[in-house]
Amino acid sequence: MSEAPAAKRQMASTPDNEAPYKLIYWPGLPGRGEHVRLAFEEASVPYEDTAMHEGAVEKVLAQISTKNLAADSAPNLPPLAPPVLEHGDLSISQTSNILMYLAPRIGLAADSDKDPNAIYRLNALVLTALDGLSNEVHDAHHPICTSLYYEDQVPEAIRSSKQYVKERLPKFFGYFERILQAQEARNPDNKWLYGAQLTVADLVLFQCFDGTAHQFPRAVQQLRDAGQHARLFALVEAVKQRPNIAAYLASERRQKYGEGIYRYYKDLDVVAEDSVEGKE
Amino acid sequence: MSEAPAAKRQMASTPDNEAPYKLIYWPGLPGRGEHVRLAFEEASVPYEDTAMHEGAVEKVLAQISTKNLAADSAPNLPPLAPPVLEHGDLSISQTSNILMYLAPRIGLAADSDKDPNAIYRLNALVLTALDGLSNEVHDAHHPICTSLYYEDQVPEAIRSSKQYVKERLPKFFGYFERILQAQEARNPDNKWLYGAQLTVADLVLFQCFDGTAHQFPRAVQQLRDAGQHARLFALVEAVKQRPNIAAYLASERRQKYGEGIYRYYKDLDVVAEDSVEGKE
Repeated sequence: MSEAPAAKRQMASTPDNEAPYKLIYWPGLPGRGEHVRLAFEEASVPYEDTAMHEGAVEKVLAQISTKNLAADSAPNLPPLAPPVLEHGDLSISQTSNILMYLAPRIGLAADSDKDPNAIYRLNALVLTALDGLSNEVHDAHHPICTSLYYEDQVPEAIRSSKQYVKERLPKFFGYFERILQAQEARNPDNKWLYGAQLTVADLVLFQCFDGTAHQFPRAVQQLRDAGQHARLFALVEAVKQRPNIAAYLASERRQKYGEGIYRYYKDLDVVAEDSVEGKE
Repeated sequence: MSEAPAAKRQMASTPDNEAPYKLIYWPGLPGRGEHVRLAFEEASVPYEDTAMHEGAVEKVLAQISTKNLAADSAPNLPPLAPPVLEHGDLSISQTSNILMYLAPRIGLAADSDKDPNAIYRLNALVLTALDGLSNEVHDAHHPICTSLYYEDQVPEAIRSSKQYVKERLPKFFGYFERILQAQEARNPDNKWLYGAQLTVADLVLFQCFDGTAHQFPRAVQQLRDAGQHARLFALVEAVKQRPNIAAYLASERRQKYGEGIYRYYKDLDVVAEDSVEGKE
């Protein structure tokens, strides 16, 4: 390979880097958009959040309309669902994808300027957190189908939640605890998922933890009281105490959990001992 | 930004590009590893597939062991689950992440050498296909929890499957049909998801379609007979007829569906009319 394409890429990307960032997401709940918000807030990078303005729902509906062919925005493609990030001429969807684009641009991708492979290690952490501590947590209150009301699947949701807190929650908490243990073994100063410096993966894990603890407060408290996953709990506290994050969490921009991914239902606030079922 | 980091990146990546590729995955079923296999096969790029050799299960177990701290492989991190790709010094997990790394290196990322944003548009398509036509299809036979046997959740799986084929299958097929429609509107030669050239997104959609049709043959046949999603069905046929893919599918390397993501159970082979439930 010659150096020409790389040089061209850098020149071409300069205008984009100066363009404003715009997040398009549902108003009224943190949802998947929250991962993008936390990244901007931590990095002190200005962004427009359509959820904060009038017409927020209409902006999302225009994006996900089955009539949307993104004809005016080629080569961009219409998204199936928000969040959508717009930056210069680019419009992309899918939470992990947006974060992978964003993190190196706003200083949340560790040493990705020196190690081009860092972003793939971070992306794997992000995807794993979203799998186990976002998608699966959502599915615990909507086990039969996301297209039915919660009220139409309560007994199944109770059963699913019992299994989740018994089998899945400790598995995923344990996985991230192990990552932190591996980092610590490499260097005692490594208190983050990817070494000595906070990255987008830590922010995603924080938000996933926070939402999971909202939905399953008793189960999470039980793990905390047992002294398990101490590094994970410490990471969550350390993220909360970052000045920019602390200011954001105390602001009106931080929305309350509602009828989104993470929901509190008393019937689903179970602990591991509530399940008597076996394991595959 | 100066040009130095980019130039360094390119030099640093040269040895990796010459290193052999190794896929670590469960033997005996296509699973998530199949997306990686199809990419290598289409691109005619040699790869070692641990599933094809003795000790395959042990190789996966060593990766996902809760004792694995990847101590010898820093800055790599242990995976929660396979597939794992090894390339030179790099070891990464998560299907979409592996494909995002791989696609530009093996010529399956369209014009990503000219347009650095192409990979993010492709990744969004890949993630959306995996969400709706892999994860959700799996969850239709394991609605309560992946940690229970299918036999312990049959009534729930029947209900979930009815909802899936009624609400979700047409939604996701319709989304990809719309992407193909958008591409065609831009240029009549565009028969692939990302324009005039086959990419990793087409291969992922093919495999997702193939597995979904294995699990829900009646529902998929019904959509085909109705003449809906004609561009999507044509894309699937076009992938199948690619010489390298056709040769692969006819080979012993293409494994049969079993107790993996995509499963055929007669009780779950339902059509939309089997559901009488409402919609959220």
